[in-house]
Amino acid sequence: MTTDFATAPRRLENMDDLVSLCARRGFIFPSSEIYGGINGFWDYGPLGVELKQNLKACWWQRMVRERDDVVGLDSSIICHPRTWEASGHTEHFSDPMVDCRACKKRFRADQLDDIGSCSAREGSSEHDLTEPRNFNLMLRTSIGASEDAASLAYLRAETCQPIFNDFKRVRETARQKIPFGIAQIGKAFRNEINPRNFTFRSREFEQAEMEFFCHPREREKWFSHWLEERLCFHRELGLDDEYLRTRRHEEGELAHYAKQAVDVEYRFPFGWQEIEGIHDRGDWDLRRHSEYSGKDLGVTDPETKEHFFPMVVETSVGVDRTCLAVLCHAYTVETFEGGDERTVMRFHPALAPLKAAVLPLSKKLAQPARKLHLELRRHWNVFYDESGNIGRRYRRQDEVGTPFCLTYDFDSEDDRKVTVRHRDSMSQHRIAIDAVVDYLREQLENSG
Amino acid sequence: MTTDFATAPRRLENMDDLVSLCARRGFIFPSSEIYGGINGFWDYGPLGVELKQNLKACWWQRMVRERDDVVGLDSSIICHPRTWEASGHTEHFSDPMVDCRACKKRFRADQLDDIGSCSAREGSSEHDLTEPRNFNLMLRTSIGASEDAASLAYLRAETCQPIFNDFKRVRETARQKIPFGIAQIGKAFRNEINPRNFTFRSREFEQAEMEFFCHPREREKWFSHWLEERLCFHRELGLDDEYLRTRRHEEGELAHYAKQAVDVEYRFPFGWQEIEGIHDRGDWDLRRHSEYSGKDLGVTDPETKEHFFPMVVETSVGVDRTCLAVLCHAYTVETFEGGDERTVMRFHPALAPLKAAVLPLSKKLAQPARKLHLELRRHWNVFYDESGNIGRRYRRQDEVGTPFCLTYDFDSEDDRKVTVRHRDSMSQHRIAIDAVVDYLREQLENSG
Repeated sequence: MTTDFATAPRRLENMDDLVSLCARRGFIFPSSEIYGGINGFWDYGPLGVELKQNLKACWWQRMVRERDDVVGLDSSIICHPRTWEASGHTEHFSDPMVDCRACKKRFRADQLDDIGSCSAREGSSEHDLTEPRNFNLMLRTSIGASEDAASLAYLRAETCQPIFNDFKRVRETARQKIPFGIAQIGKAFRNEINPRNFTFRSREFEQAEMEFFCHPREREKWFSHWLEERLCFHRELGLDDEYLRTRRHEEGELAHYAKQAVDVEYRFPFGWQEIEGIHDRGDWDLRRHSEYSGKDLGVTDPETKEHFFPMVVETSVGVDRTCLAVLCHAYTVETFEGGDERTVMRFHPALAPLKAAVLPLSKKLAQPARKLHLELRRHWNVFYDESGNIGRRYRRQDEVGTPFCLTYDFDSEDDRKVTVRHRDSMSQHRIAIDAVVDYLREQLENSG
Repeated sequence: MTTDFATAPRRLENMDDLVSLCARRGFIFPSSEIYGGINGFWDYGPLGVELKQNLKACWWQRMVRERDDVVGLDSSIICHPRTWEASGHTEHFSDPMVDCRACKKRFRADQLDDIGSCSAREGSSEHDLTEPRNFNLMLRTSIGASEDAASLAYLRAETCQPIFNDFKRVRETARQKIPFGIAQIGKAFRNEINPRNFTFRSREFEQAEMEFFCHPREREKWFSHWLEERLCFHRELGLDDEYLRTRRHEEGELAHYAKQAVDVEYRFPFGWQEIEGIHDRGDWDLRRHSEYSGKDLGVTDPETKEHFFPMVVETSVGVDRTCLAVLCHAYTVETFEGGDERTVMRFHPALAPLKAAVLPLSKKLAQPARKLHLELRRHWNVFYDESGNIGRRYRRQDEVGTPFCLTYDFDSEDDRKVTVRHRDSMSQHRIAIDAVVDYLREQLENSG
């Protein structure tokens, strides 16, 4: 079946269109909206939470459950403050900031283009900037009954440091030998001065990180393996090559601990930006935590008896950033002959918040349609909608990216079939009600 | 098949036995262990993270995906600080504390039995207590570039308040009408003075909360519905009636906002303790957030045109507490004729971190056994183990609660069958390799 478009389908060009769809359909909206929001914090609504869960589940399945050599972890957000001394964060994790003596605002010294957005610009005062000073990006809190220095603690700035803390315990309890990896998904916090680009740069965000520990002579091999593997992952989620690239960090750009680093970048409407980093962290972290804790985090080769610190190859996904890339990539507007438009979110079926929608053609058919809905819901997140004309209901599902609509009509009672409508092609065909579970299972499982 | 026990199976009596198993097998251990730990914070290891994920997935499936009238949310941990003024937390969320002028320590005034654990007791000084003062339990931080009062923020003390913040947005975007609910799973933080009982009372913990919004005339009905529903849930996870009870709060015990409250309690080795609360919060939260935000969070009855604040029935699961109850409940030690013992974690199959283990009888059979393992791993978390004698490997799986062991032996090549060993009964039978996926699917799906 061919569809007659008046013009080529349009992709997302203006982020405002996506921000608006996300708020309107309950994917993502500002945290604490009723209080005017809080800069750099976002809430995932009923559809957003499913999309994000699906993305995390794909990552976990691929990175942990399908591998013998990677195990999972879920560590606390607040850990011992010595962790961040050992990692170098208390000393180095800062941005250079300048204050404006005239407007009293603070800006990143390396992003002075932001200064254009400052309201003082419109007034009479001209900026009068101080010399840059370092401003630590970790969020601090205190725990325990008193608020002295002993009770100071940090919200983790990255999920990988607790992995290093737990390296020995996990290796021993999981009976792993190097090479092997430890993976975790969880929240991290950074006091970004200028949160921007929707959820791209926020103060509270989720990471999916994996630290892979290997012998020094194998680090190059594993770095290449993981870079290839991670690119594959993003491609399989539907981000195609035209929108995906790698960018190798140059010498001067590398973090103090890094031996080499490659970013996986997605072409957002606001430019090419990192959604994942693959880093060769060397033995920096294990060496430092050994030094600061007094515990030996080295390993001994059972054959050569050589004792050494494993090298670490890290893969670090920004979960919110990848969600945002997936949302940007899915967004499509089609214009038909006659001028009608539809907005369709072309999510990969594995990521789609709703896998199917059951739509009775008339409210009179609600009872049997609900029966089908009940059965499907045991397996997948399936929506039921009986309100409005069928065309409008299709459009509602297109706009939230539901891959399959199942329409129960007046013939269904007789032929025991429903109409399956495909989101992207809008093609329709009838299948037996008894075969719907198997049909969806095949479509959803083989879509990867 | 009957098993000959020398004595009746023993259940968990001493928490130390569980703490030790959890550390040894990588379920749960102290956060930042290499730095001496941090009081009230715990990490979930490779098996613990799977157990917890499975528990959360069961809750989400039951509470969100299988219901038309409940939708999901994932809000930020840090929200606008006005949220906590409206909720009453900045004013009321505190414990009465006393300081000892002699030993300089601080204690909860309502838990002075703790004072016995104080080291000063062993010295010469006698306690000299101040009058009780209130100590707020919320963790504070500051966001933005400056650290003035305007930048003060809190880590959420419960996951429900952001649900109230987002009530209007979610109701409108999800096109819901009351009665309906909003559910979310996430971290919350409380500065407990005396974290205790393993993970039971900790400073960072996970909640699974659902706020159900209904008409005032239906609140009693919904309270009963949810109490029944939630009890069912815990029973279906395998917590049996001897270990489960409800306890209704008496008048004087009720929180300031609560109209009625019932705790679901589990009989831990350290006594009956709450794992979930079902609360009638009335219209306190929506009314207060309306007042503090200036936004009308009331709803209008489309028929009567009556405008009112919905009443809220809350179900609030402590995820870590319920995990702990599941761990306590599963723990069993059996002594056989002859004195041999086995420790077996009798997890419900839906919660078990590993669903099956594939064990080649000899390393020579590794290749075909791995092939089976690869296939099963596409569907479930399945372990592969070829090291040690088969009896020891069974025991290792018993101790982490794997419901099925699949042994590939020298006959398997000829008859294309493997031996299935059941964790609890230790009974064994052979099934066709081609039928293993269907067999496990049936066993795992019908175990609920």
